[in-house]
Amino acid sequence: MPVLKNISQLACCRMEGQQGDIHTIEKAALAWESDKFAWVGGEKELPERYAHWPELDAAGRLVVPGLIDCHTHLAFGGWRAGEFEQRIGGKSYLDIARAGGGILSTVRATRQLSEEALLKRSLQFLREMGRLGITTVECKSGYGLDTKNELKLLRVYQRLAETQPLRIIPTFLGAHVVAPEYRDRREKYIELLIQEMIPQVATQGLADFCDVFLEESAFTREESKRILEAGKRHGLRPKLHADQLSDGGGAVLAAELEAASADHLECISESGIQRMAESGVVAVSLPLASIYLDQRQLPARRLIEAGVPVAVATDFNPGSAPSYDLPLALMLACNLQRMTPAEALKGATIYAALALGLEGITGSLEPGKSADFAILDAPDVNHWMYHFRPNCCVGTFIRGMQLFCEPSVSLWQEE
Amino acid sequence: MPVLKNISQLACCRMEGQQGDIHTIEKAALAWESDKFAWVGGEKELPERYAHWPELDAAGRLVVPGLIDCHTHLAFGGWRAGEFEQRIGGKSYLDIARAGGGILSTVRATRQLSEEALLKRSLQFLREMGRLGITTVECKSGYGLDTKNELKLLRVYQRLAETQPLRIIPTFLGAHVVAPEYRDRREKYIELLIQEMIPQVATQGLADFCDVFLEESAFTREESKRILEAGKRHGLRPKLHADQLSDGGGAVLAAELEAASADHLECISESGIQRMAESGVVAVSLPLASIYLDQRQLPARRLIEAGVPVAVATDFNPGSAPSYDLPLALMLACNLQRMTPAEALKGATIYAALALGLEGITGSLEPGKSADFAILDAPDVNHWMYHFRPNCCVGTFIRGMQLFCEPSVSLWQEE
Repeated sequence: MPVLKNISQLACCRMEGQQGDIHTIEKAALAWESDKFAWVGGEKELPERYAHWPELDAAGRLVVPGLIDCHTHLAFGGWRAGEFEQRIGGKSYLDIARAGGGILSTVRATRQLSEEALLKRSLQFLREMGRLGITTVECKSGYGLDTKNELKLLRVYQRLAETQPLRIIPTFLGAHVVAPEYRDRREKYIELLIQEMIPQVATQGLADFCDVFLEESAFTREESKRILEAGKRHGLRPKLHADQLSDGGGAVLAAELEAASADHLECISESGIQRMAESGVVAVSLPLASIYLDQRQLPARRLIEAGVPVAVATDFNPGSAPSYDLPLALMLACNLQRMTPAEALKGATIYAALALGLEGITGSLEPGKSADFAILDAPDVNHWMYHFRPNCCVGTFIRGMQLFCEPSVSLWQEE
Repeated sequence: MPVLKNISQLACCRMEGQQGDIHTIEKAALAWESDKFAWVGGEKELPERYAHWPELDAAGRLVVPGLIDCHTHLAFGGWRAGEFEQRIGGKSYLDIARAGGGILSTVRATRQLSEEALLKRSLQFLREMGRLGITTVECKSGYGLDTKNELKLLRVYQRLAETQPLRIIPTFLGAHVVAPEYRDRREKYIELLIQEMIPQVATQGLADFCDVFLEESAFTREESKRILEAGKRHGLRPKLHADQLSDGGGAVLAAELEAASADHLECISESGIQRMAESGVVAVSLPLASIYLDQRQLPARRLIEAGVPVAVATDFNPGSAPSYDLPLALMLACNLQRMTPAEALKGATIYAALALGLEGITGSLEPGKSADFAILDAPDVNHWMYHFRPNCCVGTFIRGMQLFCEPSVSLWQEE
């Protein structure tokens, strides 16, 4: 039953209010009992009953809710550093995809790796993410593209959830692109998704969400609708990769289907913004993907002004966003999307939790919620995002327990 | 006399060739004797005489020259996190400067700090930079703006050069802006610079370079010319903050004066590019400053195609670039300025050395040069910049000695 004292600023990040309302308390304290917060407030107001609990000292630093990365493709085989140089040389993401590179090259490498090898790679990434203050990670399949390999990826996430401390939220993304074996029979692949993969994923309880990549090189609006509706029938909430490289009406579809989130949205239309605002779908901003693809950034200000909650995530994947650095994504959201530090933080805490249906469990510092938080070497939220440092997290707590994260030996070497 | 073996890729980064020529060797080895490289090449070609030298193991990782940050404002008082939020809210850098914020607020805070306090703050930053693989740092004065405080800042750099391992190159930037006391008598401040500060800085051997901020809010082209020529007469090589917020003819002036470098250049003209190419002035790209000021990026491709050597640096300062993360600046130069990883690396090694007149001493892996290098957890240069991580440096060597860098306790708390 510890009490954390000497906190320069505490950002509670409750749901109420606007994107920029993060409910800060200066000179604060934080108490938790086993795995849940018991009390949050000004140190002077600390109730008598906590006065004799064991004390921890934040040394005058900032405390925020454990960060939530609500969009990653965590488990994959191989890397695609060569494509990075090709894109800088002027090749487009779609050119590379049409040439059999892009996602399909990662599919080949992922199918070749065993469940054990994928587990080991993913564990190294999670360890590094924990060191940055991240306590919850959404993880998508989508590099298997057949029943056996999609289930393999989701079993990796299931085992990660059981064997390491970070909270893992699995998403089925069998509809990432059409599998290479079905290139000329896409209708058959969609049948496979709807009649075989989705039912098996649901029956085995391997995913909470069903996601689709609605894009010229992937699935049409009509196909996406059918796949997400099938997922819904099996209890998988819809998510959507929408309007990334062009306006494909993805945001509007996400609103129609009451998706938990629509992600990317660099090319979202005005009507898409309005429909999302009306339906309460969370917009997920992925600034790293936009810079790696030399693309316009999501219009965060227009979304926020329309009342759409904007989450911020990394999109960590080996192609368009080869970084798990969520604090960097937040700094980029400030500088390139003109979000204030407070708005960006709300996007990586309670609004990210909302995008994952976890808003009742984590994402804010409130009594009764999971004691997930990070201690950052900064006096306040503005300073943290302004003075960008490789890593200023000095303590990560998940369910009330502090992580001890050793830097992993290597993040790229294969077995 | 150690030999480093098992290097997956060695990037020698010699001066010859184009921006993208970094002279890589796969499966390489590296030998040094006391503080200088003795031999560089393929491990199979290692000469007999080194066979019995003590061995170090790079564990199949990438080795690059020690990184050089050729543009920082390392020593300063206070922070300006509030302005970060103001700029996001729409206030321009010039608005903030006119309102007495910006550089002048840092001048007030810097004048209040003792030489000891500035030394301690700077030392913490250098320790963190060393952990990133940085071995040489250019450090500008310019937050004193009177003789006493400008000399105080340069003495801090002199003491840093004597008391910690990173190589420090001091630059006199008394012409950062007109001192507040001289706002209505700018001519008098320029006389102070030319007749008092520059002679004293030169006599006391406190700087190698003289720099001027040529900008609407700072100094005109004519004033800059007079100040830099005065510096030249006292043996201080010219540098120039040029064409950052508007085209002020700075690049052309840098060429006329045969400056070591012209820095920023976001708004450089075609003629400026041509004149720089003819005169061999190094262009210093500062991508962090451009994103923090929500500004266009330097046109790196046009400069490179014209044959201008492009260095990449952080511009670390408390206002427009509050980060010392040079590897991040390199990743941004790739993504936002379309430099290839090899081009960016040459910009933070031998071309950065050229911008500091150190090309004969450091910046490349060649026999006779200072044994400054970094071991990075990546298989090659492309992968390093593509898979961005908070810090993948696993070893930094300066003059043949490995740094042991403890993370510093806090980078923002005042005494």
